Amino acid sequence: MITLPEKDFNRLTDNLVSFITTEMKKTGMHKAVLGLSGGIDSAVVAALCAKTLGKENVTGICMPYKTSNPSSLNDALAVAKDLGINHEILEISETVDAFAKKSMVNPNKNRDVRLGNIMARVRMITLFDFSSANDAIVFGTGNKSEIMLGYFTLFGDAAAAINPIGSIYKTDIFKLASHLGLPEQVITKAPSADLFEGQTDENEIGFSYVEMDPVIYGLTEQNMKEQDIIEQSHSKKLIDLVTKRMNSMSFKTKLPIVSTVNE
Amino acid sequence: MITLPEKDFNRLTDNLVSFITTEMKKTGMHKAVLGLSGGIDSAVVAALCAKTLGKENVTGICMPYKTSNPSSLNDALAVAKDLGINHEILEISETVDAFAKKSMVNPNKNRDVRLGNIMARVRMITLFDFSSANDAIVFGTGNKSEIMLGYFTLFGDAAAAINPIGSIYKTDIFKLASHLGLPEQVITKAPSADLFEGQTDENEIGFSYVEMDPVIYGLTEQNMKEQDIIEQSHSKKLIDLVTKRMNSMSFKTKLPIVSTVNE
Repeated sequence: MITLPEKDFNRLTDNLVSFITTEMKKTGMHKAVLGLSGGIDSAVVAALCAKTLGKENVTGICMPYKTSNPSSLNDALAVAKDLGINHEILEISETVDAFAKKSMVNPNKNRDVRLGNIMARVRMITLFDFSSANDAIVFGTGNKSEIMLGYFTLFGDAAAAINPIGSIYKTDIFKLASHLGLPEQVITKAPSADLFEGQTDENEIGFSYVEMDPVIYGLTEQNMKEQDIIEQSHSKKLIDLVTKRMNSMSFKTKLPIVSTVNE
Repeated sequence: MITLPEKDFNRLTDNLVSFITTEMKKTGMHKAVLGLSGGIDSAVVAALCAKTLGKENVTGICMPYKTSNPSSLNDALAVAKDLGINHEILEISETVDAFAKKSMVNPNKNRDVRLGNIMARVRMITLFDFSSANDAIVFGTGNKSEIMLGYFTLFGDAAAAINPIGSIYKTDIFKLASHLGLPEQVITKAPSADLFEGQTDENEIGFSYVEMDPVIYGLTEQNMKEQDIIEQSHSKKLIDLVTKRMNSMSFKTKLPIVSTVNE
């Protein structure tokens, strides 16, 4: 089996702190804001921001929708308390419902997925609005696995000014979270976008990150071909799924395609 | 004075049609959707899409807010009628107001600008939601002048899948619109984002595009220095404004900054 390279999490943490320090210096600002979902990715980014900028300069915004699992908000608040950062709770239900009532053409077609995207984008608006009113930089919380698989909402949860964890596999995010001493309940629960009831990343994608990450690593960092990976005892179904997602979703990180035509 | 190069608008139109054809082929889709604001940029993009894809495959969505100038909607409908494309009118007032009520921290600070950004982003959500429900590609309508000056809302009006006019100066957009035979009322009115009452690009930025475009051209395409441009009889105040905006706003086209740290 392919395995991800072992990491020194002290060194990784130091390097991530340096990255944030460097990028924040360029902005001339000293405050960070991020969506605190109750999940592990936003907890890790919040912890890195607090470590770099000071807990008093970090605000986590909890943005529940009426169908969000109440445990998500509880977990988000536990993270804010654990880190000692500021937090705000800003419900998105009224906004999303107003949108759903007034702005959806064919509202019942593919409704759950569309509402999920609307939620992710309303959260983006909330963070950037807070950012502009409070001179805080919006931090992104997408990890490498999600980005490579296209498992995010374009101009939604992927929209940010600075994303410190975009090159770290989800498998390593779990270890980094433990290393940073984040609350156990955030580390052990199943990853979920919590956009509709019962949603988990694994159910929706079909495989776990522990299964997918070595395949992504083999394909993108080891330049392996499908056959090489099969020979390492990973299933063809898994490899096909990862390859197909990576090919069909890669456009999402490249938009907008702006014409260079000018004559 | 510096002047923009003369263009052959027949050739430019042909090249833009080729660009759209090529990029649409890559998506495997054949329908386009765009926000139809009543302004000249969206009118030009709608015309190019109709020319390339057929009018029956283009939908313009009008998204007025309660304070939008009623003439904007009239002009947008005139464009839709003139081109024979499909249109929808989807009010954003309820959504924006629900957001303003529930999701703004310090709601009175810099309120007009923030509401403008919220409107631009709610319109983005509307277009991408329509896109996903109707298998239509979201076309962007930002011109080169706006992009270089950072005169757009990040993850708002700049968010799109394909933008055919991002390399064309506003000065040339006017000429292209005439060439394409768009309604006179759309061509002659003062450019405005219509985000708050009385807003025009020129009032907000301080100079007209006819004044700014040659300076942008000199700086970015002719590699001229400030002194070279002053010697061409453009005012120092104008050059300083353009330079300052180009420097301070260029970050907007480069976000998110994703860390490459992984060890």
